[in-house]
Amino acid sequence: MTRVAVIGAGPSGMAQLRAFQSAAQRGVAIPEIVCFEKCADWGGLWNYTWRTGLDEHGEPVHGSMYRYLWSNGPKECLEFADYSFDEHFGKGIGSYPPRAVLWDYIKGRVEKAKVRPWVRFSTPVRMVTFDEASQQFDLTWHDLEKDVMGTERFDHVVVASGHFSTPNVPFFPGLDTFNGRVLHAHDFRDALEFKGKDLLIIGRSYSAEDIGSQCWKYGARSITSSYRSRPMGFHFPDNWEQKPLLTHVVNKTAHFKDGTSKEVDAIILCTGYKHHFPFLSEPLRLKTDNRLWPLDLYKGVVWQKNPRLFYLGMQDQFFTFNMFDAQAWWVRDQILGRLPLPDFAAREDDCLSWRAREETLTDDESMIRFQADYVKALIEATDYPMFDLEGVVQTFLEWEHHKHENVMTFRDHAYRSVMTGKMSPLHHTPWKDALDDSLEAYLAEGPGA
Amino acid sequence: MTRVAVIGAGPSGMAQLRAFQSAAQRGVAIPEIVCFEKCADWGGLWNYTWRTGLDEHGEPVHGSMYRYLWSNGPKECLEFADYSFDEHFGKGIGSYPPRAVLWDYIKGRVEKAKVRPWVRFSTPVRMVTFDEASQQFDLTWHDLEKDVMGTERFDHVVVASGHFSTPNVPFFPGLDTFNGRVLHAHDFRDALEFKGKDLLIIGRSYSAEDIGSQCWKYGARSITSSYRSRPMGFHFPDNWEQKPLLTHVVNKTAHFKDGTSKEVDAIILCTGYKHHFPFLSEPLRLKTDNRLWPLDLYKGVVWQKNPRLFYLGMQDQFFTFNMFDAQAWWVRDQILGRLPLPDFAAREDDCLSWRAREETLTDDESMIRFQADYVKALIEATDYPMFDLEGVVQTFLEWEHHKHENVMTFRDHAYRSVMTGKMSPLHHTPWKDALDDSLEAYLAEGPGA
Repeated sequence: MTRVAVIGAGPSGMAQLRAFQSAAQRGVAIPEIVCFEKCADWGGLWNYTWRTGLDEHGEPVHGSMYRYLWSNGPKECLEFADYSFDEHFGKGIGSYPPRAVLWDYIKGRVEKAKVRPWVRFSTPVRMVTFDEASQQFDLTWHDLEKDVMGTERFDHVVVASGHFSTPNVPFFPGLDTFNGRVLHAHDFRDALEFKGKDLLIIGRSYSAEDIGSQCWKYGARSITSSYRSRPMGFHFPDNWEQKPLLTHVVNKTAHFKDGTSKEVDAIILCTGYKHHFPFLSEPLRLKTDNRLWPLDLYKGVVWQKNPRLFYLGMQDQFFTFNMFDAQAWWVRDQILGRLPLPDFAAREDDCLSWRAREETLTDDESMIRFQADYVKALIEATDYPMFDLEGVVQTFLEWEHHKHENVMTFRDHAYRSVMTGKMSPLHHTPWKDALDDSLEAYLAEGPGA
Repeated sequence: MTRVAVIGAGPSGMAQLRAFQSAAQRGVAIPEIVCFEKCADWGGLWNYTWRTGLDEHGEPVHGSMYRYLWSNGPKECLEFADYSFDEHFGKGIGSYPPRAVLWDYIKGRVEKAKVRPWVRFSTPVRMVTFDEASQQFDLTWHDLEKDVMGTERFDHVVVASGHFSTPNVPFFPGLDTFNGRVLHAHDFRDALEFKGKDLLIIGRSYSAEDIGSQCWKYGARSITSSYRSRPMGFHFPDNWEQKPLLTHVVNKTAHFKDGTSKEVDAIILCTGYKHHFPFLSEPLRLKTDNRLWPLDLYKGVVWQKNPRLFYLGMQDQFFTFNMFDAQAWWVRDQILGRLPLPDFAAREDDCLSWRAREETLTDDESMIRFQADYVKALIEATDYPMFDLEGVVQTFLEWEHHKHENVMTFRDHAYRSVMTGKMSPLHHTPWKDALDDSLEAYLAEGPGA
């Protein structure tokens, strides 16, 4: 029997499980699927842990999730086409749910699909090699609960290990003698740790914006954010100042490129993540920075150098859950032999034409449309339910507009689901006043209900 | 040509390099030695990094070293028999040097031996397997600077990767919602971060005692240390309180087994380390807790299940640098065929007899004598210079006496070197007043000199 290994049971890996299960549900004979998940539960970054650095088994902590995180984009942009928020919650909910709500949602679909037995939890993959003679993969896993390692053969491997786990941590002179806390966003957990503190944030992308906003919301005394290229284009509260890049640190004083300085208690490096696959041998290992069109992946998923290997979700993302679905359904059909696989040169041409278009993109709108077109192309080839991608693009544009209006209130808006056609209700409490991020508080009928 | 891989260029790995070089220096034909070191420099835990969690390449940070660490035992107990402190520094120095001084010392010997070209820096080992047919090891490395992986064959592998890199991190209810900083000792770096703070330390062993003392020295408002079995037997300053085990945390309030509670700003888990070898395949992997006599290691170094594989420094330690030397010289001579290798049963008997004696040990003195006897047995089999082990035992006993007299002043004592016979000078500044931990400050003729 054909055997498929899926590495990771986060949003991408869960999509792959659901993709195969949905085919099986329709009577299609599917391969044996074995999903290896290093954590004790599924959900990937949505499965919060208080741990940082190394986990209870000595493995690098996978998650970069922090307490009090609320979706930074409308849930209407990431909704599954085969499992709506309404179906899961049995009622309309606000557009920017906190982490626990989104985790509940993505778990709901795979629980309904009954694919949990396909997952080996607490089982990281140590090494994958390819055997030319048999055209199969040797995958070495480590069962952390039993503390036993083993090697098994697979015909296909789907890498769905995410790319927000391995921090990119630059050095600035003086960081090594800073007399306070210095950490990467990957290790940020509880904004209350920084209550009353003067906080320096390095970076200008989503992590910088959101972690700064969190710390502001939970009472940091001041936020100073430091950018390399240009400031974030938002109107921040009075106690949030933007500075050009940090040049160096002396004891607790941060110095910036414009000659100014500020004494700070903590420094959070919101400096991005690396694609990191220490468990893949050299011929199988994707090397790319975080961008909309990484090379060497045909249709964004097939490893050019060995098309029995697939990668999910390796692109820089506007679309998330439903893009992972589009990829997972396509990969499923490729493995099932339902989709053609052109020769290397034809695949490379296709890949390079997407890259050429990617290089012409100038603004967020063009990038969102690029990714919408990619998702559309994938869905058209499979039986994943097509949805109103232009509608989602419009929601993204509204979202960006709301952020530019006021970055501390954009989460108080609501949007229409393209899956159900229904408008979402306004949430009962403005984001800046909602200090309880639990699922119960969010689903309650009103504040403190 | 016979090829030997040494994994790690910390104190144990450096000892292995020096052991082979010292044989070569005497005209002995030695194998090709390749040492794989994941960091950019050698010294293992003595090579300080400000980084925590994952390093600049996404690898787990190896070091658990913190700023302002001074040796917690007399340097006279860890001195090399073939390279004295006097030879290195050209003068007598105090008995409890800070980190930078010890790092300088251990580097001095291997720089003199000119073995740096044997080390491949920034090159972690990803996987080692054993090929039964050729009776050789396949070792897969990752050159992080070039970002290229490769596999090479070796006849012997010496695992010298340390065992203070992978924290043992227990969970206590409420840690996941603690509104402050929670970290393992592995991630502790700068005591000044905790100046003016109320600090909770979990544990009663060396890390707890030393990190607590550091934070006290650098101005923590209060230290509360929590023990499982019994309090540390020291007289602590007035703002240091000992409590039975933490039961749970509610927001920032820690609750203890005796029903008392305390609000704290940070929690440091000084809860020990795990032996962790994710780069070794199952048949090669040592599984042990931290104790004076781990099983499955003949003479404490030969992997019973495959005697072409060796481990250095895996024992719980009183003796350190010179015990690693004793092991490294013995392993060298085993690889060179100068020492007999009894059959499995005889090795097992030898191993179990040491274990049986280990199980009779009741106090520190008996444990120190046990380890001294082990070191002596190894040295007697090789040309490593024998030294006055009973003299070192006496120094350990004095050290313990001084700690019990006053745990905040024991570092102000000095001891006699058994290697040179010379008494070390008293350091120019009491430890509690010496806030500058640099090599320059320590080697200066007087405070502020």
